[in-house]
Amino acid sequence: MKNKVVIPREVAESPCSTDEIRAAAERLRDVVVYTPLLNSPALDARLDARVFVKAENLQRIGAFKFRGAYNFLSRLSPAKRGRGVVAYSSGNHAQGVAYAAHLLGIAATIVMPEDAPKVKLEGARRWGAAIRPYDRKTESREAIAQELASATGATLVRPFDDPDIIAGQGTVGLELAAQLEEAGHSADLLLVPCGGGGLLAGVSTAMRELSPETRIFGVEPENYDDHRRSLKAGRRVRIKGDSFTRCDALAATIPGEITWSVNRRNVNGFITVSEAEVGTAIGFAARHLKTVLEPGGAVALAAILHEKLPARGKTIAIVASGGNIDNALFTACLRDYSS
Amino acid sequence: MKNKVVIPREVAESPCSTDEIRAAAERLRDVVVYTPLLNSPALDARLDARVFVKAENLQRIGAFKFRGAYNFLSRLSPAKRGRGVVAYSSGNHAQGVAYAAHLLGIAATIVMPEDAPKVKLEGARRWGAAIRPYDRKTESREAIAQELASATGATLVRPFDDPDIIAGQGTVGLELAAQLEEAGHSADLLLVPCGGGGLLAGVSTAMRELSPETRIFGVEPENYDDHRRSLKAGRRVRIKGDSFTRCDALAATIPGEITWSVNRRNVNGFITVSEAEVGTAIGFAARHLKTVLEPGGAVALAAILHEKLPARGKTIAIVASGGNIDNALFTACLRDYSS
Repeated sequence: MKNKVVIPREVAESPCSTDEIRAAAERLRDVVVYTPLLNSPALDARLDARVFVKAENLQRIGAFKFRGAYNFLSRLSPAKRGRGVVAYSSGNHAQGVAYAAHLLGIAATIVMPEDAPKVKLEGARRWGAAIRPYDRKTESREAIAQELASATGATLVRPFDDPDIIAGQGTVGLELAAQLEEAGHSADLLLVPCGGGGLLAGVSTAMRELSPETRIFGVEPENYDDHRRSLKAGRRVRIKGDSFTRCDALAATIPGEITWSVNRRNVNGFITVSEAEVGTAIGFAARHLKTVLEPGGAVALAAILHEKLPARGKTIAIVASGGNIDNALFTACLRDYSS
Repeated sequence: MKNKVVIPREVAESPCSTDEIRAAAERLRDVVVYTPLLNSPALDARLDARVFVKAENLQRIGAFKFRGAYNFLSRLSPAKRGRGVVAYSSGNHAQGVAYAAHLLGIAATIVMPEDAPKVKLEGARRWGAAIRPYDRKTESREAIAQELASATGATLVRPFDDPDIIAGQGTVGLELAAQLEEAGHSADLLLVPCGGGGLLAGVSTAMRELSPETRIFGVEPENYDDHRRSLKAGRRVRIKGDSFTRCDALAATIPGEITWSVNRRNVNGFITVSEAEVGTAIGFAARHLKTVLEPGGAVALAAILHEKLPARGKTIAIVASGGNIDNALFTACLRDYSS
């Protein structure tokens, strides 16, 4: 019976716990950026609210994805480390895996779309990852990655639907809860960008335990509202996903199985924002928060700026999940932005 | 003899002390942003050094100037508060005084050049300050401010040459020393932007005491190198100041009397950077630090990026002093930036 794995009932039911997140935080302690909470008197005055922005664009590789990737990779056995890792990603998970692999001395191959933002392609290459480009219209990144993994014995690092990835991302929530408490605040609302749902699953797990009174919302681009539809339908809904979005980091077409099992219990609702609203948020962040956000990283700020939820008098925490934006798109957002 | 003011010898000799800076930090505690130290593995790899960026662009009003302004204003008597304050500034001191006055319920009038960056004019207006525009070519801002002060009984808030202003700016150095120590680092080099020299005087005073082994450099735009020339000449040198610079925050033409008396003892040297080097630093900061810097706030980063001092193997602290840049100039820097 030595090798039988017994899964305790509560773990089987909840693939993510705050204790797992705390363990991830321990693993990450010496390599992660404990990102600051930004705020802006101009923003607070405009909304008549207190808004705190967890600036994960200031995380290693410019996005929260490093947390989950490092947590996952650091748990691999020496034998598995020796056979390398494979990942697929539009860019931030790619960079997270590449940089974590660099730190841990693991070979990494990343399957990335040919049209990924240049800053993300460069970021992944900088840390020595091999890039396998693919055509988003004709090829399946999952299939390519699975094939590479099978051929080489490399471990596949899923972008969100994995307990270790979710626990790593959840450390954002641990820090946020501690920072708010230290500042003497309690969040009425929390808004988190949502693509595959990994960040939301981790953060909502930590916040549900540490700040149970906070209402939690996922934010999606309006063309990629699979979570909103899934919540309404009471089951995971796949959308077509052939619409345009500048939020490349959030262009998932169906909630993850594991992430959904967490999010459907933790989250109070989903909100969508338009491409134009996201552009305004990027301009606002540069002007008033002096910080650089990518479209996918700016959706929660966009939601609150455009008052998708009643904000007045409330204490609001939002996660700004990444800042990897090409200069052409960034300058377009800055040009369109006024006041 | 009751009204005779006795100036103790050590105060007359040193108009700024670390104890004064600590007292300023106490006054500022509940209103200031304890700004983060940013760093970037990409920057460290490029220079083969460890670089820490004290991000004062994330300070209230987007620049360190709030610290000195609040420290000064908070020490005014109720009677003086009632008569209001007057300041002159290209923009960051303006915003600092305006916001500090707003917090303390003091009326503020600011003399600002007509061609100040729009973001700075807006920032000062946002907090209720009355703006008195002037023509930089034909009018003296000092004379206008002095006249307003005399006419109304308002207190003049000098932009840098004042012990309370210097002590307030020095809190940047207190935080920096504490943050470096907490992270287990000791800075070999410290680079600080230098216009009138107030920030440098305060920061260098704190760092001389708390980190005596650190070599300290002021950084100026090459067209406004009055400190560099003064150090060479052994006395305060005034430059013509009719050259162009995008570093509006650093376009002082002569070191302050008080600031110079501090800086000439504390500072190891002065470095200059070109306008093009500053533009590159702004692009680099957006790309790799995900942060928005104005030209005057980016000079220290520009100096280290362009290896004006030997960096290899060193631990280097730099102050990024502000991020109030108009979108037109910001987008121009982003367009010119590559890699």
